[in-house]
Amino acid sequence: MTTNSLHGLLDRHEKGWSLEQSFYVDPEIFAVEQAIWFSRQWTVIAHASELPRKGSHIVRSLFGTSIIVVNSGDAGFRAYYNVCTHRGSRICKEDGHSPLLVCPYHAWSFRLTGELQSTRDLPAGVDPAELGLHEVPLRQIGSLILCGADAENLPDPARAEEVLQPALRHHGLDHAKIAVRRSYPTQANWKLVLENFFECYHCRPSHPEYFRMNGHVKVSAMLDDNAAQEWGKVVDDWRAEVGDDQHNRTVRVAGTHDEMKFTLYRHPIGLGRQTQSKDGRAVAPLMGGFANYDGGETAMHFGRFSFMGAYNDHAVLFQFIPRGVEETDVVATWFVDADADLELIDMDAMTLMWDITTKQDKQIIEENAQGVRSRAYRPGPYTQLEAQTSDFVESYVTVMRELLEAKGPVAKVEQVA
Amino acid sequence: MTTNSLHGLLDRHEKGWSLEQSFYVDPEIFAVEQAIWFSRQWTVIAHASELPRKGSHIVRSLFGTSIIVVNSGDAGFRAYYNVCTHRGSRICKEDGHSPLLVCPYHAWSFRLTGELQSTRDLPAGVDPAELGLHEVPLRQIGSLILCGADAENLPDPARAEEVLQPALRHHGLDHAKIAVRRSYPTQANWKLVLENFFECYHCRPSHPEYFRMNGHVKVSAMLDDNAAQEWGKVVDDWRAEVGDDQHNRTVRVAGTHDEMKFTLYRHPIGLGRQTQSKDGRAVAPLMGGFANYDGGETAMHFGRFSFMGAYNDHAVLFQFIPRGVEETDVVATWFVDADADLELIDMDAMTLMWDITTKQDKQIIEENAQGVRSRAYRPGPYTQLEAQTSDFVESYVTVMRELLEAKGPVAKVEQVA
Amino acid sequence: MTTNSLHGLLDRHEKGWSLEQSFYVDPEIFAVEQAIWFSRQWTVIAHASELPRKGSHIVRSLFGTSIIVVNSGDAGFRAYYNVCTHRGSRICKEDGHSPLLVCPYHAWSFRLTGELQSTRDLPAGVDPAELGLHEVPLRQIGSLILCGADAENLPDPARAEEVLQPALRHHGLDHAKIAVRRSYPTQANWKLVLENFFECYHCRPSHPEYFRMNGHVKVSAMLDDNAAQEWGKVVDDWRAEVGDDQHNRTVRVAGTHDEMKFTLYRHPIGLGRQTQSKDGRAVAPLMGGFANYDGGETAMHFGRFSFMGAYNDHAVLFQFIPRGVEETDVVATWFVDADADLELIDMDAMTLMWDITTKQDKQIIEENAQGVRSRAYRPGPYTQLEAQTSDFVESYVTVMRELLEAKGPVAKVEQVA
Repeated sequence: MTTNSLHGLLDRHEKGWSLEQSFYVDPEIFAVEQAIWFSRQWTVIAHASELPRKGSHIVRSLFGTSIIVVNSGDAGFRAYYNVCTHRGSRICKEDGHSPLLVCPYHAWSFRLTGELQSTRDLPAGVDPAELGLHEVPLRQIGSLILCGADAENLPDPARAEEVLQPALRHHGLDHAKIAVRRSYPTQANWKLVLENFFECYHCRPSHPEYFRMNGHVKVSAMLDDNAAQEWGKVVDDWRAEVGDDQHNRTVRVAGTHDEMKFTLYRHPIGLGRQTQSKDGRAVAPLMGGFANYDGGETAMHFGRFSFMGAYNDHAVLFQFIPRGVEETDVVATWFVDADADLELIDMDAMTLMWDITTKQDKQIIEENAQGVRSRAYRPGPYTQLEAQTSDFVESYVTVMRELLEAKGPVAKVEQVA
Repeated sequence: MTTNSLHGLLDRHEKGWSLEQSFYVDPEIFAVEQAIWFSRQWTVIAHASELPRKGSHIVRSLFGTSIIVVNSGDAGFRAYYNVCTHRGSRICKEDGHSPLLVCPYHAWSFRLTGELQSTRDLPAGVDPAELGLHEVPLRQIGSLILCGADAENLPDPARAEEVLQPALRHHGLDHAKIAVRRSYPTQANWKLVLENFFECYHCRPSHPEYFRMNGHVKVSAMLDDNAAQEWGKVVDDWRAEVGDDQHNRTVRVAGTHDEMKFTLYRHPIGLGRQTQSKDGRAVAPLMGGFANYDGGETAMHFGRFSFMGAYNDHAVLFQFIPRGVEETDVVATWFVDADADLELIDMDAMTLMWDITTKQDKQIIEENAQGVRSRAYRPGPYTQLEAQTSDFVESYVTVMRELLEAKGPVAKVEQVA
Repeated sequence: MTTNSLHGLLDRHEKGWSLEQSFYVDPEIFAVEQAIWFSRQWTVIAHASELPRKGSHIVRSLFGTSIIVVNSGDAGFRAYYNVCTHRGSRICKEDGHSPLLVCPYHAWSFRLTGELQSTRDLPAGVDPAELGLHEVPLRQIGSLILCGADAENLPDPARAEEVLQPALRHHGLDHAKIAVRRSYPTQANWKLVLENFFECYHCRPSHPEYFRMNGHVKVSAMLDDNAAQEWGKVVDDWRAEVGDDQHNRTVRVAGTHDEMKFTLYRHPIGLGRQTQSKDGRAVAPLMGGFANYDGGETAMHFGRFSFMGAYNDHAVLFQFIPRGVEETDVVATWFVDADADLELIDMDAMTLMWDITTKQDKQIIEENAQGVRSRAYRPGPYTQLEAQTSDFVESYVTVMRELLEAKGPVAKVEQVA
């Protein structure tokens, strides 16, 4: 894969049509993405409740690279690559708690703030200050901890923080805990996974349960003027009734190289449902600023790989983690109020819709990936109902072209990774 | 792999000796073969009985690419790549029956003749006529359905049809059904699998059962003038007795870029055996034009990847399907008369010889592949008893060289795939 | 991987620091190592007791390539690549005994001295003398059988033989048999496996059992002047008491392109232990020249991939076998006197220390390999306690550079393999 041939592929892309096959299957394009695309993205790595006290640490994957996030006490949350600066061993295998990070190989130990603690055995002439853990850029949006790889080229998350932090607080995420987390590893390129996530045109044939449980599918899954008018009235009535203009505002920031992409919007679940449980009725204690059920759903996008759907009594975080050119992890985490008694929550009822829908998505995305691998695959046209997917693809093509031009030859770029 | 280095390897080949290691293990040579070799081959994909009525469809692999073959009624059998023209999803997962081919992802539906049926959601400016299914070239030789990939460069099967169609009819394949089908995935390059198939020199050490059950091994497994003379007399006597000159004729067409390779010949099983069952006695009702058992075996080669052995009461089809540089599927299908009662057939007795022999072949071919991977492998000489294998290898070298010259640089060729 | 970029990587190496990531993970560098590094190394393949009589044969891996070693009677031990000179099949699948080596595919048979025996079927013009088995260079050091690949470029083992042969005889290896053999396949580059083997800095955190059972760890696992002085006195006292200067001498030959690397040294186990058993007490009959327990341990290095630790009553051989860029087999073999009754030996007690230690090593080396794969891995400094590891790495860099310069472009070199 030379820069020229990648440019050629990008130039061949036709607006409104899906990408050429190579973008979904070529390991060399994935390597370029690792070097210049993933490294410039913020992604939600954890919720503060996962690191409850000084010395708590967790092991997570940042776009396929193992990192450690620690609660360092006064110095706040910090993130480090999970690699010892001595001989390169993995330092932590699992989440835990300890006053120092100690490599199991030769017992080199590091402070929670990253400095090498045990300098006794160092050879002469080696400066211990240069052997601290490699820090990973970390920012918080409320109680969500985001990390990114390329410190010098990450977009500014300030406006996302300003807009999303109040929404998260209103939804009680500052006083929340994890009820359950599930992983849905999907054998497909990360772009196919996101393309699927960004459209509901497939909801009618592929997600019968989701289709029955969401009022918005009347407009997002089919072109039907009558149904659209009807749903528009439902939304207007709901807004008038709820009246909470500050928290119901819609903000969409497309994102640039300099500013982090994010989205906030709110709408009713519809169909007389209070929350997104199996039967639509309350499934957990009310969270945050809610005094009663208003039947609303708040959607939040944090950058390009993390998304949340928040209801009155729980919230679901989706993290998309590319692991290889045709391997993507989808991790869903359900949050409830920190004081909720988990024993009293019907987990099956709470997780049903997203669990069943994400399993169905895994299957249809994998079928999609299989077809895309075929010698007969050609780019196809996105319909009106896939506008957000088409936007995602256009933005991918635009940003990739800009990054390639900014960075010069790909060969050079690859050394960054 | 540049064209030059592939040319160099072909030039180094010595007539009568096996190929250089790279041809058996190099994924780049396999990629060239996918681009210019497999795509120009007809291969048997199905028997008409697998698609009994309008709307029947089956999912098969054409040299590793998933295709759908349908019975479209008046328009006959048709084949399509198993890829939706919308976003590229796999359309069918398994054999079935339906009046339309409906993609499970967004419910795009296609007529049995390939046209897009559901055009309602199409974006403006997109011509539905351009979104029909990608058709796969299909031809029939009697009841056998053959497909090939590269419509413009497939050899003409007309003469094969003219010669083999009567033989198939005589053997009752026009009024046959599948009794059993078995798959023998083999971890070896497809050329090693075919090289093994084309010689019986290994039959004595490697196939004790086959050796005991076939009269011809006296000449095909050893050099022995007395035995050869004896076997010659057996054949002559049999021909005189059977006397059916029309169906006993031998036709061998080596194949060119323009004409499909095929073979037809007939000889006695020998050893007093009526058919190729466990004990040599009748195992199923007589098929086609046979009024009684004549103890003969008809061999038919359809192109370079499909072969049939037909007896008086059953026939066995072999399909060789390359799946990767060192992965080849061997599929064997036993046919009997359409009216036969399968409950009354002793399947073990009918399948014994080819089942046991193909399992042994799988093992010896895999041992061969392991040795060929060694740093010590060097091409070795084919003996007289491996003449057909040597011919196969010479023809491979000749055709590959011609294709490379016709096509210019390999890099250009690869885009075809 | 061009020669230039490999030279660049070698030039970037800083003395006293671990290698750049590519050396541990890049399959192209492993391919270069296969071509020019492994092929120039002698490695211990077997002990004479594994081939007790004429016709005995064993199947082993020589740096990933299958070879057959035979006892050919008067012509001694001989080694051949496990590849038939006819069509390249694997000849032997397992250890056995037979007067001829017979390929299972077409029954070509070879004498124990390699010549093709069955020439009857050969095509005209083919000289059977050119179809003998490909011989593998073989040398013996006492009862140990060593093989190497590149006959013209193997270093001379004469001095190693002269020094190590008496030590092996003194330890009774000439009259020994295998008590037990175990394999520890390790998912890591062979250099990480050897780097770990060459230092005991990790013994304190990673090997509690080894740490408790070896007096030398006082100096090899920590920098502690008092402990070092104390251990020095233990060694001096032991030497004075044992007094066996001839067998207690230390010889270290670094190895050149022309001469095989080897090491011999002897020291006390310490801690009052007689032998390296679970409780330090005798576990098997005394071997070789020992009349009573002297509590000593003899270390022998045969080239770069085979090592032995010999005690009074048993010896342990370690063979390191690279199988892929991140896959290395570690095979440990325990020897006892040929006349020992295996039923009477407490195998668990005898194998405990090395078994538990090698399992721990497998785990820490695999953790090391995982970290080295990270985008955050950077070479780190070796401490004083890792001097032998650092020497290994420096010698690797030096020799690789010399080999590359001697051999010219890598592309050319790769054809050798």
